[in-house]
Amino acid sequence: MRLGRPMVVADLLATFVFALQGGATSGAAGLDVFGILVVALVAALGGGVLRDVLIGDVPPDAFRSTVYPVVAFGGGAVATLMFGLVRELPPLLLGSLDAAGLALFAVVGAAKAYDHGMKPLLAALLGTLSGVGGGVVRDLLLGQVPLVLNSQVYAVAALAGAAATVALLRLRVPRAAALGGGAVVCLVLRLLALWNSWQLPRLV
Amino acid sequence: MRLGRPMVVADLLATFVFALQGGATSGAAGLDVFGILVVALVAALGGGVLRDVLIGDVPPDAFRSTVYPVVAFGGGAVATLMFGLVRELPPLLLGSLDAAGLALFAVVGAAKAYDHGMKPLLAALLGTLSGVGGGVVRDLLLGQVPLVLNSQVYAVAALAGAAATVALLRLRVPRAAALGGGAVVCLVLRLLALWNSWQLPRLV
Amino acid sequence: MRLGRPMVVADLLATFVFALQGGATSGAAGLDVFGILVVALVAALGGGVLRDVLIGDVPPDAFRSTVYPVVAFGGGAVATLMFGLVRELPPLLLGSLDAAGLALFAVVGAAKAYDHGMKPLLAALLGTLSGVGGGVVRDLLLGQVPLVLNSQVYAVAALAGAAATVALLRLRVPRAAALGGGAVVCLVLRLLALWNSWQLPRLV
Repeated sequence: MRLGRPMVVADLLATFVFALQGGATSGAAGLDVFGILVVALVAALGGGVLRDVLIGDVPPDAFRSTVYPVVAFGGGAVATLMFGLVRELPPLLLGSLDAAGLALFAVVGAAKAYDHGMKPLLAALLGTLSGVGGGVVRDLLLGQVPLVLNSQVYAVAALAGAAATVALLRLRVPRAAALGGGAVVCLVLRLLALWNSWQLPRLV
Repeated sequence: MRLGRPMVVADLLATFVFALQGGATSGAAGLDVFGILVVALVAALGGGVLRDVLIGDVPPDAFRSTVYPVVAFGGGAVATLMFGLVRELPPLLLGSLDAAGLALFAVVGAAKAYDHGMKPLLAALLGTLSGVGGGVVRDLLLGQVPLVLNSQVYAVAALAGAAATVALLRLRVPRAAALGGGAVVCLVLRLLALWNSWQLPRLV
Repeated sequence: MRLGRPMVVADLLATFVFALQGGATSGAAGLDVFGILVVALVAALGGGVLRDVLIGDVPPDAFRSTVYPVVAFGGGAVATLMFGLVRELPPLLLGSLDAAGLALFAVVGAAKAYDHGMKPLLAALLGTLSGVGGGVVRDLLLGQVPLVLNSQVYAVAALAGAAATVALLRLRVPRAAALGGGAVVCLVLRLLALWNSWQLPRLV
């Protein structure tokens, strides 16, 4: 998908943040340095790769240019080399950066799926998958129940943002506004949840 | 794949049952309501999605129409809203409904793979995957060794039904008979195993 | 991809060894005989299937002919029938056979990805995935953190071999030499690591 220049910068930043986080998590889980880089790569690129495989756009965007893997490697390398520092970062700071990455991946993914002719509901679900998929695979590789299935309004925020973008695109709002509007919805919802420790109800 | 009207109804019912079960399992595992809906969706649609990705028919059938995701969401929602009730259902009842879903997914999946030119052995394996794949991903997401790798003649029943359907299709038996025959093989085998607690041998 | 006769024999041998190992591991983990065969199949074919799905060459090579699944089933069956014997094999012997399989899968996978027009860095990564992917899925199915993320210079050896093959192909070295050269790099590195119990550093 063609993204404007500011979008590309934001997309690369989100990739970096997701990789940084994946690297920090896997380093803390005791993986060796190569394992850390692998998990960083998977965390940063996995959501988009899953989306592209499911809509049939292969090889996935993340594999068509060397930029995305290199940025993801960079995030993993920084997490490794500055592990002490990254671990000391305030959780709310990392969480807020992550929320920005989530918002961006979700709306860009939803727009891409919608452009590929997916029905609105499915485009919103694929946008959500783009946002949360990398983290799900990261957690599976680390032998953990994916955080996103069990945590503070995370995937719900991604779904809300993705759905908002699809709805705006259907209303023929200009593309940048649709992406921006959806991203704001996701970001605000996720930040509110993070700052207030919102939890969805459980059954047991 | 074009299915006749009764087949479509059965396919949607199977989707609903798998979603209901996925929702009940994940609710009991302590996921929040959104996580429950996600696992329900994955359990109901995952097998067919894996099959379609592997035979190269993407976007997968489950993503081409809104009906399947909506039915799967419905199953997850019922599991959530009526959690107390669903948990009280006799295991043999749920298990029998599940066996019917398994039989249907396995034979429909095998027939689809065969129609796409897969060799008979592989069509039977892909049919098995269609039947059990959703449950495998469900269990992985819940951090459990997939039940199907370790339980009473479950995947074996799916394989037997899928293989029977492929064999019947090769004998140019009418399509409905091939699907029905394979489904009966799977269903009978699975129900016998369930009622008699058959186990395959282990090595340790 | 067209492979020469000796290459095909080696590829089938590697498939057999990976299946044997997958079967032995899952038997020891307490799966029933069907689960063992499934894990053997996944361990032997999973890496190549993931690669083919990601480069968009579906159905995957492993599903186009009956030979690969049959050989993988054979490895799983031998692991089941001769479980006592396979468990007694010296770890270094199994590890060395496995290293040969890893080397072969990594260089063949890298060459295939490169032939499909993937950029060099990504072709090397996809070759690595071809080598280690089956083992990753095997470990996930068994509920374990993938060994490869956490063990003695395993994926690194695959990456080195895959990168060497891609580099040699870019230098227009004859194909057999590029594959052979990369395989030697991977094999030597992995065997040295195995015999000397090399470990990559950890952060915690």
